[in-house]
Amino acid sequence: MLLPPPLNPPPRPLMGPGPSDIHPRVLRAMAASTVGHLDPYYLELMTGLQQMLRELFCTKNELTFAVSGTGSAGMEAAVVNLVEPGDPVVVCINGVFGQRMADVAGRAGAKVTIAERPWGDVFSPDDLAPVLKSARPKVVGIVMAETSTGAWQPIEEVSKRVHDAGAMLIVDTVTALGGIPVEVDAWNIDACYSGSQKCLSCPPGLAPITFSRRALDHIRARTTKVQSWYLDASMLASYWGTDRVYHHTAPINMTYALHEAVRIVLEEGLPNVFARHALNHRALKAGLAALGIRYAAREGRQLPMLNAVLAPEGVNEAKVRSDLLSRFGIEIGGGLGVFKGKAWRIGLMGYGSRSSNVLLFLAALEQLLAEQAHSFSPGSSIAAANAIYRK
Amino acid sequence: MLLPPPLNPPPRPLMGPGPSDIHPRVLRAMAASTVGHLDPYYLELMTGLQQMLRELFCTKNELTFAVSGTGSAGMEAAVVNLVEPGDPVVVCINGVFGQRMADVAGRAGAKVTIAERPWGDVFSPDDLAPVLKSARPKVVGIVMAETSTGAWQPIEEVSKRVHDAGAMLIVDTVTALGGIPVEVDAWNIDACYSGSQKCLSCPPGLAPITFSRRALDHIRARTTKVQSWYLDASMLASYWGTDRVYHHTAPINMTYALHEAVRIVLEEGLPNVFARHALNHRALKAGLAALGIRYAAREGRQLPMLNAVLAPEGVNEAKVRSDLLSRFGIEIGGGLGVFKGKAWRIGLMGYGSRSSNVLLFLAALEQLLAEQAHSFSPGSSIAAANAIYRK
Repeated sequence: MLLPPPLNPPPRPLMGPGPSDIHPRVLRAMAASTVGHLDPYYLELMTGLQQMLRELFCTKNELTFAVSGTGSAGMEAAVVNLVEPGDPVVVCINGVFGQRMADVAGRAGAKVTIAERPWGDVFSPDDLAPVLKSARPKVVGIVMAETSTGAWQPIEEVSKRVHDAGAMLIVDTVTALGGIPVEVDAWNIDACYSGSQKCLSCPPGLAPITFSRRALDHIRARTTKVQSWYLDASMLASYWGTDRVYHHTAPINMTYALHEAVRIVLEEGLPNVFARHALNHRALKAGLAALGIRYAAREGRQLPMLNAVLAPEGVNEAKVRSDLLSRFGIEIGGGLGVFKGKAWRIGLMGYGSRSSNVLLFLAALEQLLAEQAHSFSPGSSIAAANAIYRK
Repeated sequence: MLLPPPLNPPPRPLMGPGPSDIHPRVLRAMAASTVGHLDPYYLELMTGLQQMLRELFCTKNELTFAVSGTGSAGMEAAVVNLVEPGDPVVVCINGVFGQRMADVAGRAGAKVTIAERPWGDVFSPDDLAPVLKSARPKVVGIVMAETSTGAWQPIEEVSKRVHDAGAMLIVDTVTALGGIPVEVDAWNIDACYSGSQKCLSCPPGLAPITFSRRALDHIRARTTKVQSWYLDASMLASYWGTDRVYHHTAPINMTYALHEAVRIVLEEGLPNVFARHALNHRALKAGLAALGIRYAAREGRQLPMLNAVLAPEGVNEAKVRSDLLSRFGIEIGGGLGVFKGKAWRIGLMGYGSRSSNVLLFLAALEQLLAEQAHSFSPGSSIAAANAIYRK
């Protein structure tokens, strides 16, 4: 056969919904020489990674590790371990990833009841009251940072209500973790998963996850086997725990990458990381406002790392995205679901959340909007963003 | 918290059951700059990877791709897509990985019937006749290269018998692919999966897989949803197919690595790759014979890339392995299951299948056996191996 051309990926500022810009140290770590999955060095590295993941999730949960798959595998791991066939489960849907969780739960044999809010909005504890009463769920699933809408779901009060109703809580923090506070213990979350490729600035392929003591007790008391051998938390606990019993061959080099990525986050310090995400979000938002561009998510509930905005009337949103990519090398995301063809999703995640990305993006966007005859005052978005940085 | 030390893995010749030595080009490829999972460049790269995987599997199967998980995720993907709850399934067990497949099939709701052969032995078509008749399976699963025993299972005649009985055939080629011929179309295999970390010399984390037209038709005619959202082949087909519908965020940099790894195999050419694996196996075997060491698998059915041998009487096998690692940096594997505490598993996989690894290993082993007062003629293993290379 004629072989395809050698690998030669173009450099890209990744400002979409993920993967995000990868930190150069992480790329370098990933290329370190591979050791075996039972090598004493690797076992020690796993221990260090687990300690750092606990710090990141703000938890003391023993069962804290990385699922050998992307964030969606983390979602599936949380669901299939906590749910047995026939269990009543409530899933909160206000975007694509809630829909996905409902699908995953249904496939796990759950009796799924859906709680819905409009896309771009979030759930109040009171929104859940009726469904908690009628469905009497064993498990409730909710997405903290809905990547399809940019909405920031507060968790603490919802968790109280869910636990008052006797249910366990699964929280999707794929886009949240490392960008906004995620307090697993303080908020009493039973299963919380994320992805390597968002605010951790690591390539996609691993899903950090943590299970509460309560969740683990429940898993150990199951009367049916977990439907997925690959994602069976009890077996994974034996490998990630002190026994180190072989389960599957761990993705060694991806683990190197995640170890480095989480280390970088903790070196900066979580409060600094969150402040940086907030600052760059405010600068981007000021710049977009100067162009007359509004956010998809409700005011006060907008995620700093995922800016879902409505493309201005009369602008060809797909052309803007493809021009950003082909002419400036910048990737942003289009809308999903009800926002398909209507929204842009601009990521400022982890290493990608920096002033140079904000300014480059605004400068490029101004150019493309001007070409499409969108009306704004030239230079206004850069000035507005810089005004935030100068404060 | 006190951060764990920075990443600094020791260099290791990886001569265990996998991961194998990673080709330096593959490590470099993995560290290339990340692009998005819907980037035109990435979509083109996927196409090239799929073409190369078809060449590697010797198939024209449209549905050929890489599962975003390790080899065990490939196993689970093959099983959960072909099996619906209540389906009769036969799994052939002559080692750990057959056992694993039976477990996976049971969790998928299959009525599992087990066909057994002693560890180290393989199945003849006649061995399967009774169980094919009594169980009338919809699917039969078998392992081509049993990594726990080093036994080489011939597939072609077994496949005929399985298809004569009206069943579909799943073949585990995790350790086989890229080391011995795997002829998916010629042997009429319905689902065939592998892992990136064996003879492809790529870090663990991806599972190449291919489904026959017949398997795909079956999947499309299912009356139940595939229990795993993450591994649902129909949805994955939409992403890897011409539609390119977003499913989950692909593990971009691992895909770079696999692309480079498969390219390296095809650059060398499959016949050359197989001849190299056979040669280094013969040299190792001659060297081990000079030390009085015998293979666990039946003569004539020994895999070239995974040499499972019985530790000599009176030798502390665990100490040999730990000394190999601590004093020479060499990783080999211990025995699993019935071979626990009794066997060594010496991998000569992919880039690791080379004369320098064979000679280094034999030289180190001679030293350790001499320290444990094992009787042999000094230098005999090296001379015996070199005699093979000189031919």
